[in-house]
Amino acid sequence: MSPELGEQLRGTVAAQDRATETDAVIIGAGPVGLFQVFELGLLEIKAHVIDALPHPGGQCIELYPDKPIYDIPAVPVCTGQELTTNLLKQIEPFGATFHLGQEVTTVRREADGRFFIETSKGTRFLSRTVFIAAGVGAFQPRALKVEGIDAFEGRQLFYRVRKPADFAGRNLVILGGGDSALDWALHFAGEGPHRAESVILVHRRDGFQAAPASIARMRELCDRQEMQFIVGQVTGYEEREGRLTGLKVTGGDAVTRVVPLDVLLVFFGLSPKLGPIADWGLDIERKQLVVDTEKFSTSVPGIFAVGDINTYPGKKKLILCGFHECALAAFGAAPIVFPEKGKVPLQYTTTSTRLHKVLGVDTPVFD
Amino acid sequence: MSPELGEQLRGTVAAQDRATETDAVIIGAGPVGLFQVFELGLLEIKAHVIDALPHPGGQCIELYPDKPIYDIPAVPVCTGQELTTNLLKQIEPFGATFHLGQEVTTVRREADGRFFIETSKGTRFLSRTVFIAAGVGAFQPRALKVEGIDAFEGRQLFYRVRKPADFAGRNLVILGGGDSALDWALHFAGEGPHRAESVILVHRRDGFQAAPASIARMRELCDRQEMQFIVGQVTGYEEREGRLTGLKVTGGDAVTRVVPLDVLLVFFGLSPKLGPIADWGLDIERKQLVVDTEKFSTSVPGIFAVGDINTYPGKKKLILCGFHECALAAFGAAPIVFPEKGKVPLQYTTTSTRLHKVLGVDTPVFD
Repeated sequence: MSPELGEQLRGTVAAQDRATETDAVIIGAGPVGLFQVFELGLLEIKAHVIDALPHPGGQCIELYPDKPIYDIPAVPVCTGQELTTNLLKQIEPFGATFHLGQEVTTVRREADGRFFIETSKGTRFLSRTVFIAAGVGAFQPRALKVEGIDAFEGRQLFYRVRKPADFAGRNLVILGGGDSALDWALHFAGEGPHRAESVILVHRRDGFQAAPASIARMRELCDRQEMQFIVGQVTGYEEREGRLTGLKVTGGDAVTRVVPLDVLLVFFGLSPKLGPIADWGLDIERKQLVVDTEKFSTSVPGIFAVGDINTYPGKKKLILCGFHECALAAFGAAPIVFPEKGKVPLQYTTTSTRLHKVLGVDTPVFD
Repeated sequence: MSPELGEQLRGTVAAQDRATETDAVIIGAGPVGLFQVFELGLLEIKAHVIDALPHPGGQCIELYPDKPIYDIPAVPVCTGQELTTNLLKQIEPFGATFHLGQEVTTVRREADGRFFIETSKGTRFLSRTVFIAAGVGAFQPRALKVEGIDAFEGRQLFYRVRKPADFAGRNLVILGGGDSALDWALHFAGEGPHRAESVILVHRRDGFQAAPASIARMRELCDRQEMQFIVGQVTGYEEREGRLTGLKVTGGDAVTRVVPLDVLLVFFGLSPKLGPIADWGLDIERKQLVVDTEKFSTSVPGIFAVGDINTYPGKKKLILCGFHECALAAFGAAPIVFPEKGKVPLQYTTTSTRLHKVLGVDTPVFD
């Protein structure tokens, strides 16, 4: 090895070892993670934000970017996209650094009390505090468990509908008995720009966990032969020249029928997957992080959990509850970040000259 | 007494005895009281709202209708007026009934478990649940305690500045050592449309509980003789022909000086006054209602307390925290209002057909 190459390699290793030192790392860039930046910012704590998705917004953007949300306080209606945009605008003064498209793989307490955090891309931090705002974790659609069928995912097998137009005019088979399965079945079976050539809904039993109105509408469309509903389990599939051509569905009568299709949509729900978080030594109850309601601290002091990922008596998985949790968690973190400051007083954004300064706004003059 | 008059009187008495039967009464129409209407509404619980002020909005409207608020989540900036307007719009679908300009004087549990509520105007309710969202209570500015001086209140003595223009060009004496006193002193002493003829700040000691920048600015204006600062206590006043002409200020040197004035502005802070709430048998800690963090229930089951009036470990008096408290309190109330229903499931405004119905919106169609 040439001395130059050796030098280069040593340089690379040193760069990997170098961790960004910071006061706070927020895991999750959904609405609650974003608002955590704001609440920390008011207390003059700068944050780095990590998210597995390539953009901020979390579930709101991933699952319902265009669906209206009605229960953000003082916002009569907004979409997931608008909510995210407004939160990003609100946290702008605080200059958080985003590290997107990477999962946190390691959180470990160091000898000096700080946390070492590493992501799947090798980004490293040494932080005084950690805020887990990871929602339901790296949630994933529950997969259809039929050997070999995963080879068609993304081509003919889908767990999400990103562009409904792609499925217009096709022969669809939809699996599932919840709201998503019914909503999409009705969507593609109904009059509208995305009407499919045919829609067959397959569910393991003749009973649904969905809005009664949707179930009634589905039965009506079946009666009018505008769609079909089959009770049965998927037990296999048929293919021809690398294309999925049919699904083997075994009914309650033990008879297996082949249902032909162009596209298979599967809605078996989302499976929350805590992923590496499960290995960080935090108290967990039913896949959620147990926190107190004073600081929203996990069982490890310095690691806070806010939003859908935490649990405590009375917990409701509402965005507005996550916002409250962010505020109290920030006040819980301040004594760790500024041990010399003592108790941090609550100030108001309407009147505090200090908060106006950190927000970068002028203190108002009355007229 | 004629039989007709007797009949009429009996009718009147019966009408007074008649109480409106309802599921929920909310005491306080500030932002948190308004959002309580929303959270109850989502659970199909109708509410009556009572407030001492003649309009909804509470402190936000009373203290800072035009001051920007920066910490409402997903609302980068709004005024107290805008916040109130948006909340009123958000709760519109739920048709709450407002009873304004009246204080609640009585809350008493009846034999059947419901609460009897009566206001200063004689409005009466029989309600299954009560939500106290009364902020700091019927809060009042701390008064200047100099015998007889209260006779000038509203003419030359003021505890609030409603229209700064009224004081332009006048000789002002301002009492107090907090942010309000300094802010207004700087406002009227500074260049601007409301510049006073003279501004004299009087505080009992040469030390302030205010933003350092304001204190520095005040000292600078004093050095430039654009305002004056006197250390001393007000011990009396002078009047001529029913007009307040001067204030007797006794300094640390025990010398009393007369300070001439046109207008006296007093900013000794607000004194929270729980008022009749103190007599309803609820656990109280430092003038606040003790609640749990699961349902935000007071010590009396069926009476909830949300927003600035409650206290629990970690409590921060932030509007956004009050919003969270409303959500959990509503879920806490549901089993009392609907004992037959069992546990109320959490549904989402993005996806729930039931919530769309109560909100009066269409369930969205994707495109």
